[in-house]
Amino acid sequence: MASETDSAHPLTRPFTRAEALSLDAADPLRAMRDRFDLPSEGVYLDGNSLGPLPRGVVEAVNQTLTHEWGTRLIRSWNEAEWFTSSHRVGSMVAPLIGAAGHEVVVCDSLSVNLFKCMSAALRMQAGSGRRVIVSEIGNFPSDAYINQGVAATFGTSVVDVDPKDVEAAIADVGADLAVVQLTHVHYKTGNVYDMAGITELTHRNGGLSMWDLAHSAGALPVALNECNVDFAAGCGYKYLNGGPGAPGFVFVAERHHAGLSQPISGWYGHANPFAFDHGFSPAPGMGPMLVGTPPIISIVALEAALKVWAEVDMNELRKKSIAMGDLFLRLVDERLQAYGFGVASPRDSSKRGSQVSLTHPEGYSIMQALIARGIIGDFRAPEILRFGFTPLYLSYAEVWDAVDVLVDIMTTSAWDAPEFRVRNAVT
Amino acid sequence: MASETDSAHPLTRPFTRAEALSLDAADPLRAMRDRFDLPSEGVYLDGNSLGPLPRGVVEAVNQTLTHEWGTRLIRSWNEAEWFTSSHRVGSMVAPLIGAAGHEVVVCDSLSVNLFKCMSAALRMQAGSGRRVIVSEIGNFPSDAYINQGVAATFGTSVVDVDPKDVEAAIADVGADLAVVQLTHVHYKTGNVYDMAGITELTHRNGGLSMWDLAHSAGALPVALNECNVDFAAGCGYKYLNGGPGAPGFVFVAERHHAGLSQPISGWYGHANPFAFDHGFSPAPGMGPMLVGTPPIISIVALEAALKVWAEVDMNELRKKSIAMGDLFLRLVDERLQAYGFGVASPRDSSKRGSQVSLTHPEGYSIMQALIARGIIGDFRAPEILRFGFTPLYLSYAEVWDAVDVLVDIMTTSAWDAPEFRVRNAVT
Repeated sequence: MASETDSAHPLTRPFTRAEALSLDAADPLRAMRDRFDLPSEGVYLDGNSLGPLPRGVVEAVNQTLTHEWGTRLIRSWNEAEWFTSSHRVGSMVAPLIGAAGHEVVVCDSLSVNLFKCMSAALRMQAGSGRRVIVSEIGNFPSDAYINQGVAATFGTSVVDVDPKDVEAAIADVGADLAVVQLTHVHYKTGNVYDMAGITELTHRNGGLSMWDLAHSAGALPVALNECNVDFAAGCGYKYLNGGPGAPGFVFVAERHHAGLSQPISGWYGHANPFAFDHGFSPAPGMGPMLVGTPPIISIVALEAALKVWAEVDMNELRKKSIAMGDLFLRLVDERLQAYGFGVASPRDSSKRGSQVSLTHPEGYSIMQALIARGIIGDFRAPEILRFGFTPLYLSYAEVWDAVDVLVDIMTTSAWDAPEFRVRNAVT
Repeated sequence: MASETDSAHPLTRPFTRAEALSLDAADPLRAMRDRFDLPSEGVYLDGNSLGPLPRGVVEAVNQTLTHEWGTRLIRSWNEAEWFTSSHRVGSMVAPLIGAAGHEVVVCDSLSVNLFKCMSAALRMQAGSGRRVIVSEIGNFPSDAYINQGVAATFGTSVVDVDPKDVEAAIADVGADLAVVQLTHVHYKTGNVYDMAGITELTHRNGGLSMWDLAHSAGALPVALNECNVDFAAGCGYKYLNGGPGAPGFVFVAERHHAGLSQPISGWYGHANPFAFDHGFSPAPGMGPMLVGTPPIISIVALEAALKVWAEVDMNELRKKSIAMGDLFLRLVDERLQAYGFGVASPRDSSKRGSQVSLTHPEGYSIMQALIARGIIGDFRAPEILRFGFTPLYLSYAEVWDAVDVLVDIMTTSAWDAPEFRVRNAVT
């Protein structure tokens, strides 16, 4: 335990575990925890990377394996509605991101979906002579790499700027602006962009907006249509709890559905795939964003996971998410001030997603020591410790316990052990 | 039952069910049937579309769901080797297609993989001025559509010709030839291309070869490296029995690994994804063909399904596949001559994959009537009835029984009922 002199709040006594338990008792979301099969020990603060197993997923997947696949076989494409699963599961994601059901499909990986969206947006701009993508230095790598790949393919260029300079860059690029591609909530810092303001500015400058929602969907309310967003894509396995590598989702605003087109024109994007026509005729609506046969078993897991959300008030979720992040920061201030941690996330909760990131030069080893004690966060090079606060299944007491273990690891220097310095492939 | 006067073999008596049972008793592959959980009734002749459930898949998927995901969570990326699964499962596919383990990865859908291969091949040809893709009229739709999409993106053109004119077209295009893209075994007819000869001709004319192995992998021996093939891609859910929408595979010959590049440059294709570099540096080997986080649950199912093949002699498999197809054709000749069926597949078994396709103007309704009687084949517009003969789990007696039911449906006109005329979404 840290002594009380470590506290950054010398005029107040440190927040106690009993107080955390009181918050839990009054938590309107507390019943949601029972919808998940969490490990019996430890605190899982990595739902921003891989959400835990929701109850009902095992049963749904086994029904697909043994009955739909095992017994009914090929007939399940119709009977079990495998064929329409991308649209059906997409419409379950839609209310979480402020979209209409027919504007969202579930398919492919987020990275492939980023490529399709960026390509579709650039095709829409082909006649305008606009050839510049504006994005962020420090965007999630796949966003940056896909932007680079798309630019090389379409003969456009990318202007990557510091997050604080995004608005200036959009205005600066002006008449050359094709697309603004940003990740709504930053994967390392949890910083939230002003989606409404930047989208409005993008449109005013003649550009199209493309938002990566990997750390937004299921983390905080998203209002794509209210913000007039053009394209968006996101991830099924983080806050949506769809399982490892769950398929991603794609949003295209209805006003762009007519003429929607992207280069990976596969048979699932055809107006009538089972006509086996030789020429490609795009399906209506979101159809052209589909490519090949989707991974049904993974989609079934995601579909079962999404059922949880029917009972969730996203405003309550956001309130609890902010309260957990604020509590974590308060406890860090009160109890960890002596140990050289920095705070990489915004302290202003309105600008912070559902995670808090600390920095520390020994971040890798400290995170390994935490994981060994059952406090599962993750590390992002070079020195970020990420803690995801996922209100559906976490309690305030767990936030308190996580900090308590971190305090113990720092006071005893437990992190400074050879076994915590071994780097894994995925860190 | 058809009368004996229907027989096309008037000098021989019709092949009997007892004879089929004798073939089964001597079948060296007969033990493999126990490796599958087949429905208790009926005959499944659609393994060329969706392979049945192999034993061990349910257990493997549940281990991933409950232990790896449910309990170990994010740690399973290392512990359960999720992170390397595309390479590991790819190396299990490799021996089935005559490739080295490091030349194959499992990822994405076949359609997305076709796009990556064709784009990579066209990038290799960028400096050569060669701009023509040669393919087949009547290729599987996704092949045709992806070729069209790639051509529109890269400013190349596609020459689609009748299968019998492929060799002439390659020679004719000559100095403009960029890539020859063909499906090795035709999805409708089962016709097998001469992979060695066409690849040799392609190379002689300065082109690169790209083979779709959707109906080849697990259906017959494939010798990619012996044939000097450049690129190939295939499907996990047909003869490989990986489950509905199982991820596809990609092959790139080792000689093309240096400088391998395709437009969908996602973070899984980066040399060091967890360095979170801003610029894309391609991974070595097959790495650049990977894009985003793969659907682990679907990959685990495919991996468990592939274990079956360790015990299979591909030459025995091919022998039985041919014998089953020949038996089916003999029985059709002997017992169904009066009913207007045509044979769409090559009678020369060396040119036929592991399916036999019949034609009939009432094919759709006849197939629905067969399915209602438990004989599961499928229909491909406008008039093809497909029967897949998958030697791992089918018996000669089942081939006999399938024809026997078909004879009954034709003699009684049972197919001519209103319920067999209703078209499903997926037919």
